Amino acid sequence: MDVLPLDHQSEAPLYRQLYDQIVEQIQSGHLAKGERLPATRELAGHLGLNRTTVSAAYELLEGRGLISSHVGRGTFVTGSPETAGSGLNWSAQLEREGAPLRNSFPSAGKGLISFAVSRPADAMFPLDEFRAAGAAVMGRADLAEILQLGSPSGYEPLRRRLLEDARRQGLASSGDELIVTNGCQQALDLISRVLLRAGDRVVIEDPAYTGLKNLLTGSGAELIGIPAGPEGMDISHLRRVLVRERPRFLVVTPNFQNPTGTTLPLASRQALLECARAVNVPVIENDPYCELRYHGQALPALKQLDQHNGTVLLRSFSKVSFPGLRVGWALGPKPVMERLRQAKEASDLHTDQLSQAILLEFAESGRLEAHRARILQAGAERLAATIAACRDYLPDGTRWVEPQGGMNLWVRLPDPFDTVELLARAQRQGVTFLPGRYFEVARRNPGALRLSFADLRPDEIRKGLEILGQVAASESQKAIAGGPVPAMV
Amino acid sequence: MDVLPLDHQSEAPLYRQLYDQIVEQIQSGHLAKGERLPATRELAGHLGLNRTTVSAAYELLEGRGLISSHVGRGTFVTGSPETAGSGLNWSAQLEREGAPLRNSFPSAGKGLISFAVSRPADAMFPLDEFRAAGAAVMGRADLAEILQLGSPSGYEPLRRRLLEDARRQGLASSGDELIVTNGCQQALDLISRVLLRAGDRVVIEDPAYTGLKNLLTGSGAELIGIPAGPEGMDISHLRRVLVRERPRFLVVTPNFQNPTGTTLPLASRQALLECARAVNVPVIENDPYCELRYHGQALPALKQLDQHNGTVLLRSFSKVSFPGLRVGWALGPKPVMERLRQAKEASDLHTDQLSQAILLEFAESGRLEAHRARILQAGAERLAATIAACRDYLPDGTRWVEPQGGMNLWVRLPDPFDTVELLARAQRQGVTFLPGRYFEVARRNPGALRLSFADLRPDEIRKGLEILGQVAASESQKAIAGGPVPAMV
Repeated sequence: MDVLPLDHQSEAPLYRQLYDQIVEQIQSGHLAKGERLPATRELAGHLGLNRTTVSAAYELLEGRGLISSHVGRGTFVTGSPETAGSGLNWSAQLEREGAPLRNSFPSAGKGLISFAVSRPADAMFPLDEFRAAGAAVMGRADLAEILQLGSPSGYEPLRRRLLEDARRQGLASSGDELIVTNGCQQALDLISRVLLRAGDRVVIEDPAYTGLKNLLTGSGAELIGIPAGPEGMDISHLRRVLVRERPRFLVVTPNFQNPTGTTLPLASRQALLECARAVNVPVIENDPYCELRYHGQALPALKQLDQHNGTVLLRSFSKVSFPGLRVGWALGPKPVMERLRQAKEASDLHTDQLSQAILLEFAESGRLEAHRARILQAGAERLAATIAACRDYLPDGTRWVEPQGGMNLWVRLPDPFDTVELLARAQRQGVTFLPGRYFEVARRNPGALRLSFADLRPDEIRKGLEILGQVAASESQKAIAGGPVPAMV
Repeated sequence: MDVLPLDHQSEAPLYRQLYDQIVEQIQSGHLAKGERLPATRELAGHLGLNRTTVSAAYELLEGRGLISSHVGRGTFVTGSPETAGSGLNWSAQLEREGAPLRNSFPSAGKGLISFAVSRPADAMFPLDEFRAAGAAVMGRADLAEILQLGSPSGYEPLRRRLLEDARRQGLASSGDELIVTNGCQQALDLISRVLLRAGDRVVIEDPAYTGLKNLLTGSGAELIGIPAGPEGMDISHLRRVLVRERPRFLVVTPNFQNPTGTTLPLASRQALLECARAVNVPVIENDPYCELRYHGQALPALKQLDQHNGTVLLRSFSKVSFPGLRVGWALGPKPVMERLRQAKEASDLHTDQLSQAILLEFAESGRLEAHRARILQAGAERLAATIAACRDYLPDGTRWVEPQGGMNLWVRLPDPFDTVELLARAQRQGVTFLPGRYFEVARRNPGALRLSFADLRPDEIRKGLEILGQVAASESQKAIAGGPVPAMV
């Protein structure tokens, strides 16, 4: 690539002059599609420029879809807009976006026993109770208002009820506000939109829920994982990271974290708040599972413990009722809620009002509480069945931490198991799950897997784990047979 | 501010060294909260650095909430995280975000005749028909599947039906895919997430729908408005802009554009596609109003005319049925649809399934078409009433272009009317509307206002415009009375 000397006296910034020259060379065909550009350091040295200047020009070129960078391979001319073929080259339009937002999940074919999805059992949905709540809403005189354009903050009767509940429970103070979102996922998304810029650091648990990782990395965040052990986040590790890295915010799932199932003890909750406060880092309390406690005593939410206004609490109807209706909420200090409301309006105007009205009716009529009592009992049985079956069927040396609620058991097979390889064999035998790799932030954990048990009957759980145990046993046989032959002693 | 010489030999980039020094000064209190930092050009000159280096350091500081820039005023220390008061300073966390995402709309109090919202009339909602569709879905054997976690692409029976319809209408080719979104607004949002980076240029009509402007500027885009006259976008203007600015994409509302009500003629549609194709710019066809044509013949969609795979079509149930149910869709080439699906999943997992199922039932049972016939008749009457009342009551010299459908009439009062001032007086007299200023991209148009007529009965329309005419008449009286006294001739 030939670059003419840049004009240091010009009003046009140097990076822009460089950009213009390269654009011209691409458009004239002097730089052909597929050609490699010099590395920024090399070109900077060659032209006597600051490397930042070259990077800025390259970024602009990439932004216009003219070049494309690949880590470890270099930067290449993607082609000139003028010289493209007959159809729009969408790949070039999309390419610069980087890695896809998510991994592809294992398919859950019919007949499979699937431990792969952290969702409630639809076989237990109280359909007649749901129909009754639906009919009540459909029969109401204000149905037309429900069907009309609504407020970005949520359907007002639901919003008010949730806020009153939160006040009664000591979760909301007078300076707080609440908005309805399409589940916790959208609340996390809106928070990212309001607080994050590309390159910001965000602290989360390691391992973490895939949807959270994908959302944050898709927003350009750099993830910092805090090891989550049997008692949740390691708080002294967290403290060091917060002081050193000054992240934009911290996301924590204090109850029955996905995937580890662990709960943060009271002392850790207090310590977490204290160290977040010391460095002024907002705490995002992602709490979709809190209503699903099977054992032990409920702990106060971080939002409740936080005397310093630094926490936003996210909850949802999804895990405790019907995830096909997308209704959750965010509760926090008014300034941030006002910004979330604006982001919500830009994002999709407001959450579906029919589902908000039906869920409100379902809750106010006492049906939600009755349903919860049933799924708590079933959840406890299913968790117990999962643990018993792990004990009975999985290889010696397998470990897990018994959760007190939620939908997930985090299992670690002994070395040298690799659960990605195990999954391929297990699926052929009719069982699926998610390997630990899906949840990794930084720490590798090849022997880990997540068993989501809430959507399976105890007999399916036993059958599934029996198969998994057999597959694992044949794996380790093979490992022994295929490995180096030991000396006979 | 004192800055020690930077180390040009260090592995640490210069901007990072500068950043570190300033952080230290803020944390040590050497730079106090509220203190003004030197301009980037000034500091660059002083330190013998490239201005880009200083800008990068400042951006990082702003990203950490340590400083804040205000156009025309300068850059100030916002404060050190350590020295904050007892509660988290959310304003500092949020401040860097820049301008709020939206303007605040005039309030629509009870009793007001409101021309302010482009929405269907809830008084015309066919509630019994809706109840019947709801009851049919509630009675179905697969209700539990509808209530269970769904697909990011949409409720499959609805998705398939929409795609089949699009194929039959010649809108979809074999390389196309369709995903369900929470209305057109979310489709626009997902497209922005997939295609946009901060600083990218996006071409839209001027004036444009506020929700589109807010979404794009909130995503960091630089908006370029193409004047929209009586026949929509000025295509020769568009051609020049596309060649000169190379925007990331172009958003066009070809039918009954909001706010101008205009429709893009066939020749302009073809010319638009041709010039977008010549520079490889994707076309986003935002088409929520297409089913609301009261007069004239329907024109082919851009998506249908585009032989080169460069268009994504957005449509919605909102304007033609119940906006409280948030269901729309996007149709386009598979690569971009796959990315939209990923962004959709990161954003909120999927669209509410109960509403998708009910709207499908509402459409398949023929109820949607019957409802549409009724609202087409009412819409034609309401549009005619609006135009007649403008003629009867608004000041001489008022102009408008008669739309062939949709929900909005764009009215221009003669100079020197300012519709922002007019609005304040009109609201006191019981009438509200949105002034042209809300829709401005670059071109000022102080005499313009949008009259959204679909949600008002003809008698309300006449009454409202009679009041507006009176307010305008008294305004111009005042303008004469308060202005310089003319010579008596």
